[in-house]
Amino acid sequence: MKLVRYGPKGAEKPGLIDAAGNLRDLSGEIDDIGGDVLSPDGLDRLRALDPESLPNVDGTPRLGPCVAGVSKIIAIGLNYVDHAAEVGAKLPKEPIVFMKATTSLSGPDDPIEIPRGSVQTDWEVELAVIIGTRAKYVTEATAMDHVAGYATANDVSERDFQLRRSGQWVKGKSHDSFCPLGPWLVTADEVPDPQALKIWSDLNGERQQDSSTEQLHFGVAQIVSHLSEFMTLLPGDVIVTGTPSGVGMGQEPPRFLRPGDVLEMEVEGLGRQRQVCEAAS
Amino acid sequence: MKLVRYGPKGAEKPGLIDAAGNLRDLSGEIDDIGGDVLSPDGLDRLRALDPESLPNVDGTPRLGPCVAGVSKIIAIGLNYVDHAAEVGAKLPKEPIVFMKATTSLSGPDDPIEIPRGSVQTDWEVELAVIIGTRAKYVTEATAMDHVAGYATANDVSERDFQLRRSGQWVKGKSHDSFCPLGPWLVTADEVPDPQALKIWSDLNGERQQDSSTEQLHFGVAQIVSHLSEFMTLLPGDVIVTGTPSGVGMGQEPPRFLRPGDVLEMEVEGLGRQRQVCEAAS
Repeated sequence: MKLVRYGPKGAEKPGLIDAAGNLRDLSGEIDDIGGDVLSPDGLDRLRALDPESLPNVDGTPRLGPCVAGVSKIIAIGLNYVDHAAEVGAKLPKEPIVFMKATTSLSGPDDPIEIPRGSVQTDWEVELAVIIGTRAKYVTEATAMDHVAGYATANDVSERDFQLRRSGQWVKGKSHDSFCPLGPWLVTADEVPDPQALKIWSDLNGERQQDSSTEQLHFGVAQIVSHLSEFMTLLPGDVIVTGTPSGVGMGQEPPRFLRPGDVLEMEVEGLGRQRQVCEAAS
Repeated sequence: MKLVRYGPKGAEKPGLIDAAGNLRDLSGEIDDIGGDVLSPDGLDRLRALDPESLPNVDGTPRLGPCVAGVSKIIAIGLNYVDHAAEVGAKLPKEPIVFMKATTSLSGPDDPIEIPRGSVQTDWEVELAVIIGTRAKYVTEATAMDHVAGYATANDVSERDFQLRRSGQWVKGKSHDSFCPLGPWLVTADEVPDPQALKIWSDLNGERQQDSSTEQLHFGVAQIVSHLSEFMTLLPGDVIVTGTPSGVGMGQEPPRFLRPGDVLEMEVEGLGRQRQVCEAAS
């Protein structure tokens, strides 16, 4: 299934994309696409519905972030073999973990705000993992049972805030609009191998990142198991798993986002995002 | 006002402590002590109630974390002049910011879990600031208008996870039970100067930390304003503002928590916590 949240910011309704690509309204069935819906039972209940019986939504409404009620966004750093090489970093022995404020979540096509005083706002297309059931001290062998599905994400990053403002990385990762998520949450049954997906991003129509999740240094099962050693993962939690080479910081000379720039990005099978950059007001 | 959440974990009810120190039930008035209640209007509505008219709660029920629906816990590092000296660190030019998973929240007297494989679980008594209204790009001059109140917090930290596990500090700050918060949320009107409060912790009856929030390098208004430059603060968000000297890591030899150890800690006027340490199951 492809699950979505559509409508105005803060008032999104749940929906699904049917086999013909039409948006169907789920608000008669569930309140939202939140943690309670993402358990195996909750998803089975939705699978049992006949999409044809659900109201068709006309037009092309705005899409919101594809999950509601996210308790945390956990991010993995330097997790692509090609990206580590690009920034001259060694591959870590275990996942580098940081957080993004949940207030950074936005819809896949919402504008990206360039923060006041920013000179180094950068893009990072990523495979996002959405947790379906509580996970604490889970092994790699059982970790995938806790995954509800996947989505495309942009882990937008202000490099100067991230690296040179006396703080941990969270300072450069948490501005409003710094985590476009979606368009869809694609349930795990439709993604047989999350480590075999093409992943790319374009800036103003020029390809920047062009890789595959095959390049992931730590795979999804390893990441979920590892994180569950340090914190309890809840249904609806979002893990962004790292970005391949081709970010602005890694280019010669470095290249950063300005108002009016247009980003497009996609993870194979998970749908495409498109964001226009604008100055934060 | 002193606001509390009482009852079994996950099923806490809202309450307040009256002038005589009795626990009064607020569940007939509000659903919970969450962000919607913490606005100036929400708090004024509670202030208008006659505590004598509220049901008295018998006995001494468990207290939960004093705020519900927390979207983020933001922590400030190395923010006490005496603590920076203790660990041999320079005072930062601007606040060091990191996050704790919201799943680390626990009641003020709940047990502290020592994670599997931990050898360096440490304590940090802190002044917690609870946000009352949304804050984005707020100045220091107006920052205090966004503060609903204060609470005692323990920013429990696994030092090996924090500093030597290939991650950012969040790895050592996020285990379940690593953020006891309360007993009460004391509204800001009752804390005229948050930078003039005694703050202390005891381990097994021996004083470990003994300082004052006068030692804060960055004060509450500076912290709120600074954070609001990097992320939007929501009502109910919790900021833990740093710890004074006397943590286990700073001692010669270092001293860390073991199952059976008992911590007590207090920030003047904000109430006392007591935690027994136990091994994570």
